[in-house]
Amino acid sequence: MLSTIRIVLVQTFHPGNIGATARAMKTMGLSDLVLVNPRSFPDEEAERLAAGATDVLNTARVVTSLDEAVNDCVQVVGASARLRSLPLPHFDEPDDMAQSVIRNAHEAPVALVFGRERSGLTNDEIRCCTHQVSIPANPEYGILNLSQAVQILAYEVHRAWRKQAESGFTYQRPLDATPPSREQFGHFQDHLARLMQQSGFLTQPHARTEEQLQALFARAQPSRKELSLLRGLLSAFEAHLPTK
Amino acid sequence: MLSTIRIVLVQTFHPGNIGATARAMKTMGLSDLVLVNPRSFPDEEAERLAAGATDVLNTARVVTSLDEAVNDCVQVVGASARLRSLPLPHFDEPDDMAQSVIRNAHEAPVALVFGRERSGLTNDEIRCCTHQVSIPANPEYGILNLSQAVQILAYEVHRAWRKQAESGFTYQRPLDATPPSREQFGHFQDHLARLMQQSGFLTQPHARTEEQLQALFARAQPSRKELSLLRGLLSAFEAHLPTK
Repeated sequence: MLSTIRIVLVQTFHPGNIGATARAMKTMGLSDLVLVNPRSFPDEEAERLAAGATDVLNTARVVTSLDEAVNDCVQVVGASARLRSLPLPHFDEPDDMAQSVIRNAHEAPVALVFGRERSGLTNDEIRCCTHQVSIPANPEYGILNLSQAVQILAYEVHRAWRKQAESGFTYQRPLDATPPSREQFGHFQDHLARLMQQSGFLTQPHARTEEQLQALFARAQPSRKELSLLRGLLSAFEAHLPTK
Repeated sequence: MLSTIRIVLVQTFHPGNIGATARAMKTMGLSDLVLVNPRSFPDEEAERLAAGATDVLNTARVVTSLDEAVNDCVQVVGASARLRSLPLPHFDEPDDMAQSVIRNAHEAPVALVFGRERSGLTNDEIRCCTHQVSIPANPEYGILNLSQAVQILAYEVHRAWRKQAESGFTYQRPLDATPPSREQFGHFQDHLARLMQQSGFLTQPHARTEEQLQALFARAQPSRKELSLLRGLLSAFEAHLPTK
């Protein structure tokens, strides 16, 4: 479904922005790039800034009008820094836009359109769009670099996509972070309770103190490995305690 | 509150990334930048990429250790592409991280720490952190450009901030998008209903058709100005209708 989401750049001046856009796209699982009258493309600067995303540049389409870029799309979202007085349905929040795009992208291509670095999109180009979106920003300085704007909107689209149950997206987990079983954790708690007594820390049964320390360790959510280290530490202390 | 949120870059290789970071920060209302052993700073390339955010560069602090950069902070979030096997509390989702940061930033400075372009943060540097965050991305190509990662996390922090009632953040609205009053909209509906009859469109009272068209116009949420244009169009048609 991310494959039906298209990024369209209109008359980009700096080829570096095209390269950085390709990289931003690829990190967020997007690959369909269309360039409308780019000033200079292909270009070494684009290759350089694309880093490991030159495949996105290599499959990018170059066309001569925005119509050509989006005429097969069921939704065309124009990204602009300033609202125009041609009020299309407008998303104040990129996350609302992203949810709408993900829904529509099931059916057919959906495009996010970005204009020129200095002047954005013309009124005629806005007319090719079905929606507008702005990125809420500092009212005193709200103009993001073009490829940064692409990165944010691509990130929001990826976020809307992964929050769907059927996306199958899984978070990275470090290999040794398996939680312990309840039984293993119980052994640790018993060991700790015993040593609290044996060490003289709890001079009398003091449920509150014991509870609080146990709660701390529970909240820390030690992995299996960490629990094993803690047990080892407790045993090292235990070796020095008078046997009770 | 955004003023207590600090961005820390550790041993940045490309001064352009420092400049792009400053710009990304300013667009999201952040201004506190600290550089730990940057390879080259100040630098023309940083100035160039900062665009209108050179003030952020000018007030940036340069220090020689991460400790120095964050020792007054109550929360230090290390941004890394890969989870380390030194498992700090970890945010899978930048929005969870941002909500936590915004809560803590009421009290004292909070830092987001970014490592070297190629190798990220060292284990010693991770030890200076209280939390880790990753940006969920394409598992086949998940390494964002440094300033892009800053842009995304700054964006998420801004988003968490503006969603608070007390932020006072308001969305841009184009000047002529004031909605009409209910009375004005009622006049339009009456006018439309009258002309649906007068034109012969509704040959008999047909509540469903009239309802559907009225619903369309309600859903379009015309601004005061647009309503006025619609009334003008209706009047232009009306001039040609037989008076009933």
